[in-house]
Amino acid sequence: MKKELAVVAVSGGMDSCVTAAIAAQSYDLAFLHANYGQRTEKRELRAFNDIADHYNVKKRMVIDFTYFKKIGGSSLTDESMEVTKADLTSKEIPTSYVPFRNGNILSVCASWAEILGATKIFIGAVFEDSSGYPDCRPDFFKAFEHAVNLGTKPGTNIEIVTPIIHLRKSEIISKGLELNAPLNLTWSCYQNEDEACGVCDSCALRLRGFQQLGIEDPIPYKIRPKYF
Amino acid sequence: MKKELAVVAVSGGMDSCVTAAIAAQSYDLAFLHANYGQRTEKRELRAFNDIADHYNVKKRMVIDFTYFKKIGGSSLTDESMEVTKADLTSKEIPTSYVPFRNGNILSVCASWAEILGATKIFIGAVFEDSSGYPDCRPDFFKAFEHAVNLGTKPGTNIEIVTPIIHLRKSEIISKGLELNAPLNLTWSCYQNEDEACGVCDSCALRLRGFQQLGIEDPIPYKIRPKYF
Repeated sequence: MKKELAVVAVSGGMDSCVTAAIAAQSYDLAFLHANYGQRTEKRELRAFNDIADHYNVKKRMVIDFTYFKKIGGSSLTDESMEVTKADLTSKEIPTSYVPFRNGNILSVCASWAEILGATKIFIGAVFEDSSGYPDCRPDFFKAFEHAVNLGTKPGTNIEIVTPIIHLRKSEIISKGLELNAPLNLTWSCYQNEDEACGVCDSCALRLRGFQQLGIEDPIPYKIRPKYF
Repeated sequence: MKKELAVVAVSGGMDSCVTAAIAAQSYDLAFLHANYGQRTEKRELRAFNDIADHYNVKKRMVIDFTYFKKIGGSSLTDESMEVTKADLTSKEIPTSYVPFRNGNILSVCASWAEILGATKIFIGAVFEDSSGYPDCRPDFFKAFEHAVNLGTKPGTNIEIVTPIIHLRKSEIISKGLELNAPLNLTWSCYQNEDEACGVCDSCALRLRGFQQLGIEDPIPYKIRPKYF
């Protein structure tokens, strides 16, 4: 029987890689990647293509949200703002928050899914054990799914799937290892493109996850502080 | 007292012009325009800037949704598809439907509004007396507003305002005339950039509105069929 098609939002990071590995168990895949003028745009795009090659995904869509640089307000897209060092105990929304980024990504995923006839959109958002971005809240995804189904053709029925949203980082890594996800091909650092900085929010969360499992993260780091 | 700020999605067409005129009564304005690879992109951008000049709007954001051309599936962005002649009695969704376009436009409006501290997003969607695009349904806008407020920072509170959604085209024109909206600066045709074709969906709806009022549409047309 022909499998249904899923659009997977693949940033090139570990979370989206594991999400793709989960989607690959049951669906044919179409991968979508967004450049949004972030500092590590080129490295993330390479990771996206490496992961797509790994899963032999032919349907690839790379989109340019160049307007996020114009909109500004995030340390990821505004070079004049500093990428703050991780504070994994803080409850504040970090400066790396890109305003309503997931809304923008899901909108283009929905447009593409409608044309492809895909029935699912997978996105690797993580809520509790993450940076606390508002557009990673489970309620947000349910509300957005409802809006998508009201705003597309009557025959279009799309489910937004967030398979790792309640997992801790260490559980995401375990899941990835279990599914042979190519974690070595992923890139998470917000700051650097050659060696991960080890100190930004994204590096800290990732390193802590590996350290909790007592496993070495396979990608190169400039420094590997102990977070656990 | 300082007025609140509203982001207005301004395509350059008559509906968005009248929507801007309504917003201008109560709010400071920020105008957002989306190029999405549509046939009449340049002419619409000129109309956007002309309307922004008219209202002395300094905050302007022009974004490029070039990915809509890659996604395809619409006669507005795919030159190999024909822009079908208007059939104002049909209940079918016309080929000019761009998949989930308003979701994409509202997402970037929400991102910008969050950074600007704007409290409203105005969009000139029309439902009953229009082409029947699903992303113009009133329910869609309510659902999307809910998603925006869940997916942005706790302090962000944005209302999506659709002031003309239930109006007939002739009522929109009357409203525009009442508010001295610069209808002569607007562009609606899907097909041409010099003289409006007079026969696409968008021209037909517009001409019918003016004809119902017994008023001459101030923009140039190649032909002006009678629709009323």
